[in-house]
Amino acid sequence: MTAGRRLAGGVKVLELPKRLLVGRPLRSERLGETLLPKRLALPVFCSDPLSSNAYATEEILLMLSLGGLALLQLAPWVAAVVVALLIVVVASYRQTCYAYPSGGGAYAVSRANLGRNASLVAASALLVDYVLTVAVSVAAGVQNIVSAVPVLAPHAVAVSIGMIAVLAWMNLRGVKESGTAFAVPTYGFIAAVLVMIVVGFVRILTGAPAQAESAPYGVVPASHVTGLAVVLLAMRAFASGCTALTGVEAVSNGVPNFRRPKSRNAADTLAIMGGVTVAMFAGITVLALTSHVHLSDNPARLTGAPAGYQQRTVIAQVAGAVFGGYHSIGFFAVQTFTAAILVLAANTAFNGFPILASLLGHDGFLPRQFSRRGDRLVFSNGIVILAALAGVLIWVFQASTTRLIQLYIIGVFVSFTLSQAGMVVHWTRSLREPSATVSMHRSRAINAFGAVFTAVVLVIVLITKFTHGAWIVVLAMPAVFLLMKGIRRDYDRVEAELRPRPGGVALPPRVFAIVLVSKLHTPTLRALAYARATRPTTLTAITVATDQDASDALLREWSERAIPVPLKVLHSPYRDVTGPVLEYVKDIRRGSPRDLVAVFIPEYVVGHWWEAFLHNQSALRLKAHLLFQTGVMVINVPWQLASTGEPGAGAP
Amino acid sequence: MTAGRRLAGGVKVLELPKRLLVGRPLRSERLGETLLPKRLALPVFCSDPLSSNAYATEEILLMLSLGGLALLQLAPWVAAVVVALLIVVVASYRQTCYAYPSGGGAYAVSRANLGRNASLVAASALLVDYVLTVAVSVAAGVQNIVSAVPVLAPHAVAVSIGMIAVLAWMNLRGVKESGTAFAVPTYGFIAAVLVMIVVGFVRILTGAPAQAESAPYGVVPASHVTGLAVVLLAMRAFASGCTALTGVEAVSNGVPNFRRPKSRNAADTLAIMGGVTVAMFAGITVLALTSHVHLSDNPARLTGAPAGYQQRTVIAQVAGAVFGGYHSIGFFAVQTFTAAILVLAANTAFNGFPILASLLGHDGFLPRQFSRRGDRLVFSNGIVILAALAGVLIWVFQASTTRLIQLYIIGVFVSFTLSQAGMVVHWTRSLREPSATVSMHRSRAINAFGAVFTAVVLVIVLITKFTHGAWIVVLAMPAVFLLMKGIRRDYDRVEAELRPRPGGVALPPRVFAIVLVSKLHTPTLRALAYARATRPTTLTAITVATDQDASDALLREWSERAIPVPLKVLHSPYRDVTGPVLEYVKDIRRGSPRDLVAVFIPEYVVGHWWEAFLHNQSALRLKAHLLFQTGVMVINVPWQLASTGEPGAGAP
Repeated sequence: MTAGRRLAGGVKVLELPKRLLVGRPLRSERLGETLLPKRLALPVFCSDPLSSNAYATEEILLMLSLGGLALLQLAPWVAAVVVALLIVVVASYRQTCYAYPSGGGAYAVSRANLGRNASLVAASALLVDYVLTVAVSVAAGVQNIVSAVPVLAPHAVAVSIGMIAVLAWMNLRGVKESGTAFAVPTYGFIAAVLVMIVVGFVRILTGAPAQAESAPYGVVPASHVTGLAVVLLAMRAFASGCTALTGVEAVSNGVPNFRRPKSRNAADTLAIMGGVTVAMFAGITVLALTSHVHLSDNPARLTGAPAGYQQRTVIAQVAGAVFGGYHSIGFFAVQTFTAAILVLAANTAFNGFPILASLLGHDGFLPRQFSRRGDRLVFSNGIVILAALAGVLIWVFQASTTRLIQLYIIGVFVSFTLSQAGMVVHWTRSLREPSATVSMHRSRAINAFGAVFTAVVLVIVLITKFTHGAWIVVLAMPAVFLLMKGIRRDYDRVEAELRPRPGGVALPPRVFAIVLVSKLHTPTLRALAYARATRPTTLTAITVATDQDASDALLREWSERAIPVPLKVLHSPYRDVTGPVLEYVKDIRRGSPRDLVAVFIPEYVVGHWWEAFLHNQSALRLKAHLLFQTGVMVINVPWQLASTGEPGAGAP
Repeated sequence: MTAGRRLAGGVKVLELPKRLLVGRPLRSERLGETLLPKRLALPVFCSDPLSSNAYATEEILLMLSLGGLALLQLAPWVAAVVVALLIVVVASYRQTCYAYPSGGGAYAVSRANLGRNASLVAASALLVDYVLTVAVSVAAGVQNIVSAVPVLAPHAVAVSIGMIAVLAWMNLRGVKESGTAFAVPTYGFIAAVLVMIVVGFVRILTGAPAQAESAPYGVVPASHVTGLAVVLLAMRAFASGCTALTGVEAVSNGVPNFRRPKSRNAADTLAIMGGVTVAMFAGITVLALTSHVHLSDNPARLTGAPAGYQQRTVIAQVAGAVFGGYHSIGFFAVQTFTAAILVLAANTAFNGFPILASLLGHDGFLPRQFSRRGDRLVFSNGIVILAALAGVLIWVFQASTTRLIQLYIIGVFVSFTLSQAGMVVHWTRSLREPSATVSMHRSRAINAFGAVFTAVVLVIVLITKFTHGAWIVVLAMPAVFLLMKGIRRDYDRVEAELRPRPGGVALPPRVFAIVLVSKLHTPTLRALAYARATRPTTLTAITVATDQDASDALLREWSERAIPVPLKVLHSPYRDVTGPVLEYVKDIRRGSPRDLVAVFIPEYVVGHWWEAFLHNQSALRLKAHLLFQTGVMVINVPWQLASTGEPGAGAP
């Protein structure tokens, strides 16, 4: 066995690029400093629900248009139900922020109130949903960018994956930094849309309402719709409009990231988000209807449009109409911020996923690595895994928003329903205690109403979206669920196995030391000296003879130097080093099973990565095998070559 | 620091597929059985020079045709010089087989006679050439296959790389097996071509000489050629015809693989190969000229040919003419065996490269791993590296023979010249000894003539091929040369550093033992027991506090169980485990630099590869860093989980 080699230098080589990328490590005490004030928490946690204003109205109008323009009269009612739902969900989650200040949203609430399985269902729904959020938002944002810069079109997948990498990188640098970076586009989007709404309303009040470019066009119904079919179509429109609610749970998940008073600040942020979203969604919907935006999922059903007419998005048409054309500064601002916030909406998931994964890792349902904070105090592993999974999704679906968007509303409503059902149990339990207050009845009513409402929406969404791709999520969720159960089972098994017995571990009465020798060089001499210093019961040097001449020379040198340790030669007919040594060790163990075998392996540590190729790895393989033997300990005696540059290296 | 984890199971997992692929390991004693009899050595070592008959004549005719059909009268003379050169080189290498029975060809000869630098020049020439041989032969063979099966055309690169993989696999199974597999195509090729020559000659003698399909066509000269230009063109034709000599050195490289008497058998094999090659080359050339094969590198210069006429290779035209058409069995046999031997010619390199690399590895000019025989007694590492390099070349040049073939004759002639110059020195030296015989004068004359002859050819080849791509080789050879020098320099430096001092290594007077603790589970207790069993001077348990609650709980449990070892808590503001432990160890070393620090690391060994993901790797990273510290030894105390299935695993 030749002395092993080590490439520990690699550990150092990677240090500088890592520092340049993510910045210097932060002390644990500075966790407080990375906490978010409300003005930064809003962009960090709410870019997802805010961004959905960019398409929620459009989704409703598109669905209703299947039944022709006449059905657009239903739009205000559908929008009103979405707004009501949003208010209920926000109110409901505000309660959660107070009740569960350690975060976790649906997962923490179901775990506390509905038991392990319900909480894992919620967790798997959320995990799947976060991945989809990143994929859908980035794909949608890139689609907007690509339609503006057509040369990028063939590279949409690469651009999307690049964007995900940038998002992951910003998040690895830390929550606070990413909050600052995302504040501008988020507030820009809110401001641009609110200005548009105000200007639009002023024009209505002054009797000069804006007219959309598509106002003169008609829409031929896809089929003649009457009676029950109208209700079904309204339900589909409602299910599509519910995209406006995705991401609401991120705030309650992220309560630990808020400045103190955490719960209060989180609940306030939720309320602000809810208010802004309602204002924007309602405003855009009113303007879209009053400016008579007419559109269809199939351009062939659009009548009166000129040849080659390209449908713009609802928000684009409204902005164009309100600000007087597609070359106005107002239109440009709305479009730019819309594209930006669509990409950044993915950031909500980058904040939610790692926190949820850390809770699951802490509870043993995901690898524990997820629960450790990285150099910059963020849960780095969760960020990296989320980016990787979203990247794979983007690549598999070739960055196609239409194929991805259908997948991603089931998970949200599963977690909404479970979360609020859990809150109902929570209040019911609290009401039994002496400290119960009357307001708890009101809270429970809010949550009960929310639970029923979102459960109904979940059923509607499942029915209307299942065949459009949602079945993938319906398969993925149980898979994640079972994976988490399996991981926990393994952790439980290992923990039970490692639990110390009352008797402790018996002290081995004797230690048989073995020093592996390939050549008589200084590392070998050092290993022999160290082995003697531990004063074992017996000490033997062994060498494996793969080459008769070499082992003869070694024996000769051994006796010439009069080394005071016996050298034993093991023969190896298959030129294999591992087998004979393992056999030798097993023999000792068989002879005295209560004793300990200490195997000393001289290694030399190289300073350059390429030196690793020049020195072979048979010692590594042997060590891996020795670790499988009971009653054996493996001792690495390193010899640092001068090239490591360590103080004292190269000296005997 | 949590207890580390090991994935030693991976070592076992890979065992079964490896056995299925390469077969059971062979005992070292069986090396004799894998030695080759002459009838198998011929296909193994000579498929390359034999296969060149498939294109050597064509290369000459193509070059001469640049000057028009009139210059074809020079063809017999050019061919005669090639034949003479071949005879000289074969005679010269036969001497080498006797003088250097341990193999190595040009490298061994130049090392013994011309010094290190000359031998490294020869070695780099040969290494580059072997890689090119594999790439060119496989690409040429696949081109033949692809022209027969056009659906494969878009996959030429993949097919070529697949073929290289198959060749590597056959060679990894062992020399003898590959010899058997390659005997059929090699002997088939020889037989088919010799039958073709005999039939062709009989037809000439009976007054019915074969007529090639291209006999009626004329060739327009590329330029009007007179005087010196004719000589230059003849030289280019000669340089191209010299491809017939590639691979001759493989036999002298492979002498150790022959059955006893090794040298005699190798020399005889060389003679047989030379005889067969001369017969085939001369025969094909005579038949090509008498059947009036007319061809041109540019089809536009071919006159009288019908539209859409596709030029066939010379050997195909001759076979068609002799056997009476392109649907005869004889034509089919010649074509099939030609394609087969072209691919198998690569096998010569698969035998030469690993042996040369093993010699270089043994001498310290390449990583030593190249000098170790694998399970099947072949130099596995050389085979794998050769296949990888050739695969990369094929991929970079997209399996284009025309682009690759220009590269690959320089190396051959560099090594020929050096090898024969070395032999001249060898004989001169021998002649000075009292045992000198008269025949040595003759041997020296042969080698001297050969050296001058091949040196002249080298110059001709360099001049005529340089701008056609040979410059790549002219760059690659010095690069390989410098790489080998650098590797040797590193080995020398390390060896000097590791050479034991006369005083030996001082015994460290005291041993400070440290046990790393993350949790109080059985692996920790075992590590503590083992550490106590080595009776160190001091024994301390240390834990790194990344989480205050966890370390408080640990301290509580520690005192509850009344563990007789003090537990020290190291604080880690950056949640990093490695830093504080390293600092602690360095502190001890600073205090008593002559003493030894023994760091015990409890690890648990998992049985399944996926378990590795569930248990973190911070111990691995810490160990890598500890090995850089002088005066430290790192002790792995493994705990085998029951899932490893090891006897005694899971028991305390």
